[in-house]
Amino acid sequence: MSRFLASRFRALKPYEPGEQPQDRKYIKLNTNESPFELPLSVRQSVYEASERFRLYPDPQFRQIRKTISGIYGVDEDEVTFSNGSDEALNFIFQSLCPDGVAFPDITYGFYPVFAALNGVDYKEIPLAADFSINPKDYFGIGRAVVLANPNALTGMTLTLDDVSEVAERNKNHIVVVDEAYVDFGAESAVPLIRKHDNLLVVQTFSKSRFMAGLRLGVVFADKELIRDLNTIRYSVNPYNVNSAALAAGNAILENEDYRKSCCGRIIENREWTKAELANLGFEGTPSLANFIFVKSNRIGGRELYLELKEKGILIRHFENPRICQYNRITIGSKDQMESLVAAIREILQRL
Amino acid sequence: MSRFLASRFRALKPYEPGEQPQDRKYIKLNTNESPFELPLSVRQSVYEASERFRLYPDPQFRQIRKTISGIYGVDEDEVTFSNGSDEALNFIFQSLCPDGVAFPDITYGFYPVFAALNGVDYKEIPLAADFSINPKDYFGIGRAVVLANPNALTGMTLTLDDVSEVAERNKNHIVVVDEAYVDFGAESAVPLIRKHDNLLVVQTFSKSRFMAGLRLGVVFADKELIRDLNTIRYSVNPYNVNSAALAAGNAILENEDYRKSCCGRIIENREWTKAELANLGFEGTPSLANFIFVKSNRIGGRELYLELKEKGILIRHFENPRICQYNRITIGSKDQMESLVAAIREILQRL
Repeated sequence: MSRFLASRFRALKPYEPGEQPQDRKYIKLNTNESPFELPLSVRQSVYEASERFRLYPDPQFRQIRKTISGIYGVDEDEVTFSNGSDEALNFIFQSLCPDGVAFPDITYGFYPVFAALNGVDYKEIPLAADFSINPKDYFGIGRAVVLANPNALTGMTLTLDDVSEVAERNKNHIVVVDEAYVDFGAESAVPLIRKHDNLLVVQTFSKSRFMAGLRLGVVFADKELIRDLNTIRYSVNPYNVNSAALAAGNAILENEDYRKSCCGRIIENREWTKAELANLGFEGTPSLANFIFVKSNRIGGRELYLELKEKGILIRHFENPRICQYNRITIGSKDQMESLVAAIREILQRL
Repeated sequence: MSRFLASRFRALKPYEPGEQPQDRKYIKLNTNESPFELPLSVRQSVYEASERFRLYPDPQFRQIRKTISGIYGVDEDEVTFSNGSDEALNFIFQSLCPDGVAFPDITYGFYPVFAALNGVDYKEIPLAADFSINPKDYFGIGRAVVLANPNALTGMTLTLDDVSEVAERNKNHIVVVDEAYVDFGAESAVPLIRKHDNLLVVQTFSKSRFMAGLRLGVVFADKELIRDLNTIRYSVNPYNVNSAALAAGNAILENEDYRKSCCGRIIENREWTKAELANLGFEGTPSLANFIFVKSNRIGGRELYLELKEKGILIRHFENPRICQYNRITIGSKDQMESLVAAIREILQRL
């Protein structure tokens, strides 16, 4: 740390992204990336766009706003984009949560970091014993609410009625639904933004749209909230999304069939993996995301993580005592999941 | 504005980027982009990288840090990257300027916005009558100093001795040198970072490296300052630079000859344009950037801007009374500059 760093950042604990080791080739089931490549047509769109990389990107996102608003049935001024959904979430914490924020104790680990960075007071509401969110915990809570749906780590969902009621019972504060994992079997709250002018729905192109490397996030909300986010965006970095991400994002939106078919395969692989692991004595949450959250009745969470890493398979382990017997495992291709199950079987046999 | 926006942002005036009209094709001399395309080999590097766009980018920037540190003679931990240099500048204002900041009254228009966004008190120091910066104005000023060198709008430079002395006389505060335009004839302060642990040198790949559309900024500084910037970066968006920008950035760094030859052509075109405009009664600052800052003795700044726009040529006009008779004109290709001069000649003849 330099002697110049402002005192309020001196105790800041940054977010720790999943490891990206370069020492050997791993089966990466630790950061919820897609096992499927971008279609060739989308890669070609980026190549075509590269002819104009010398020019700034369109800070107004005209083309992609038009495309996405057609798909999601919203107006073009009810949507804006960010450099990954993390950037949008940070803008939201920074500018729309002056009375503090509440979120579950087990959820996306970046929320407390955004809060700390922006000096926003935060309250972590414990999940129930079965890891479910009780919507009533958030009624009239007097601060902004941020809910990942499906929830990060657990993959468990709230119904749209629940979301709607949380928004209804917090009319003077925003309610953010982080739908990073919505496309693997859950239902999106986007249609609710017309009903609730305090509701923001954040999505990412990193998971179901194969674009983790290009960083593209999107926010749907009432147009006044979108205007606020654009005010912040234009005060930080008006060209926050680059031309490669815009070109690929627009092209993949024009290929919804491919996305849906890939999501379908992830869902199949998830259910297959769950069943196989259940046979091996694992239990887990009823995840509707592109990951499962499971623990074994025979081996500890950390031990399993380390043994699998030794075998060239990365999964995500968290040290938080409440969940340290669990691991989060990204659902990859069928081949990858077969390798995972075989490796776990071998590890258990040696115990 | 929504009713949820935190009060401290309600009066925020965002930065206004140069216009990017879509109604017709313009000769764009208004946003200091390069007239030269990325070389095909760099575009192909991006295409090859697109095979892995489903995976997150490397948040540690290992490859490109290695490449750039070889070129600039710094250590790999003396450099970090950002989503355009705007993002890096915002991090700096946010975290390294707790006692406020000083910069010239005529400079990059984003500095006051970064200051306002982050609640950082700022002091604008008037340029001299000839638009030069007097380094003594910044000695022991008791706050962070941000100097664009060459200065935005004017293209005028400080010597490295000046920069060094400003750093020396502000040991307890950071001094930022924004070198967006350094590659068109000025001298970089990067070698000074070893001498001054309070000096940050910020550069961009948007101008001399043809990558405005991909957004890539870089900061050189003492490793403790770089560590601080990475702490902030990992608390906002660890994957802030996407894989396309990293691939192109690394590839263009491996092609320094092309960059240098293109910069040489810009310098030639700049000097040619200056001479032609002088013949038409213009005067301007001694710019060493990829733009000139000029006023006519026959037509007002705003009028010239509007007349040129009518003719399909965009230049940048600023309403600030001190400079409203001037325009900033990006130096493009020889063809573009010939069109500009011909158009101005025509406009003046009709007066």
